[in-house]
Amino acid sequence: MNANEINVLDVKADILEDNDKEANVVRDYLKEKKVFLVNLMASPGAGKTTTLVRTINALKDRYKIGVMEADVDSDVDAVTVQNAGAKVIQLHTGGSCHMDANMTHCGLEEMDLDGLDLVFLENVGNLVCPAEFDVGANKKVTILSVPEGDDKPLKYPLMFQITDFLMIGKIDVKPVFDFDEDACRQYVRDLNPEIEVVPVSAKTGEGFDKWIDWLTNEIEKFRAEGQ
Amino acid sequence: MNANEINVLDVKADILEDNDKEANVVRDYLKEKKVFLVNLMASPGAGKTTTLVRTINALKDRYKIGVMEADVDSDVDAVTVQNAGAKVIQLHTGGSCHMDANMTHCGLEEMDLDGLDLVFLENVGNLVCPAEFDVGANKKVTILSVPEGDDKPLKYPLMFQITDFLMIGKIDVKPVFDFDEDACRQYVRDLNPEIEVVPVSAKTGEGFDKWIDWLTNEIEKFRAEGQ
Repeated sequence: MNANEINVLDVKADILEDNDKEANVVRDYLKEKKVFLVNLMASPGAGKTTTLVRTINALKDRYKIGVMEADVDSDVDAVTVQNAGAKVIQLHTGGSCHMDANMTHCGLEEMDLDGLDLVFLENVGNLVCPAEFDVGANKKVTILSVPEGDDKPLKYPLMFQITDFLMIGKIDVKPVFDFDEDACRQYVRDLNPEIEVVPVSAKTGEGFDKWIDWLTNEIEKFRAEGQ
Repeated sequence: MNANEINVLDVKADILEDNDKEANVVRDYLKEKKVFLVNLMASPGAGKTTTLVRTINALKDRYKIGVMEADVDSDVDAVTVQNAGAKVIQLHTGGSCHMDANMTHCGLEEMDLDGLDLVFLENVGNLVCPAEFDVGANKKVTILSVPEGDDKPLKYPLMFQITDFLMIGKIDVKPVFDFDEDACRQYVRDLNPEIEVVPVSAKTGEGFDKWIDWLTNEIEKFRAEGQ
């Protein structure tokens, strides 16, 4: 790992009363730049980075992709994602457990969006605070991995209410865990009837066609609206 | 599940500049009441509740045990733990992603410590903020589960610096994950040379003798000091 190759930006959390207003500023900025931003959220170790690497590989011939890696510390994920062929910036949140709209705006400006089509914000691993802060992304995507258990929608309901697309990740290890997929889907539907729920494995590729189809469709709708 | 049987307390996070001072107040209160408090921290779905249930079963003939279940919402864990035979109080953190010393103090007073020997605080599932707030516990215990990956100490270093005992949880599923235990131990040792690291499975019981021995030893030291 060569840390020198990664652009690292220290971002500071404001307790912004007007985070929602700033989120709209971010959305306008993205529209102007014709860049589609995905806010990717999950617990620590749910598979965000592995999912990003497979997604980049599936889409890098079609779109120019950037990734903002938000971490409390370290650049292990940034190096992995850069090696997959995306433009990467590391955001150090200085102890903050989430990204807000202002931090996201700073990150997007530092990254330089010219020539990019699609940017992923890999949010801090956390099911609580990232759900509370609209960062201005076009779509919110969440991974709940099988080892975490089917009851997480009951315990962290806001995350499942606000997300647009839910991956049930690490589906390849389902045989060794007591994970009731039907129960999980019902908990999620009770909170968010509109949500798409797709079981995936970033390791084997299972379910990725559905995820890539959904994402591509959303990106093309965004581009068509921007004409 | 019968929610009516669970005592639910809404606790509010103060941004206390003097959280450390309040943590010392909590420690004095515990000393006076001769109650040993463990702050149990981990990611969502790392196995905190299953670990507590097995621990309660191992120790309930020796100690009177209470559990404070801190959750953003829901009481699924509280019901599970109460069924295992502990005295339980549910703390709703109202969106806060961690417990602080003041919230802990409120919870302990509401629980009523008379007749208890040992209390576990099951903190909110999160590797970031709970590490930043000393709640006044006698010992801090963290679970890192195998499916989360061996690199978590690099990404959430503070949690691994401040904890007294680390369980590598869900060790029974290690064969199906790429988890380098030696690397993980080295990352942890680099941050915290004094820490005890023990692989456990709350499902099979592997490693629990070491965890129970450590905990019992710490409780007995605390009780001897209180004479």
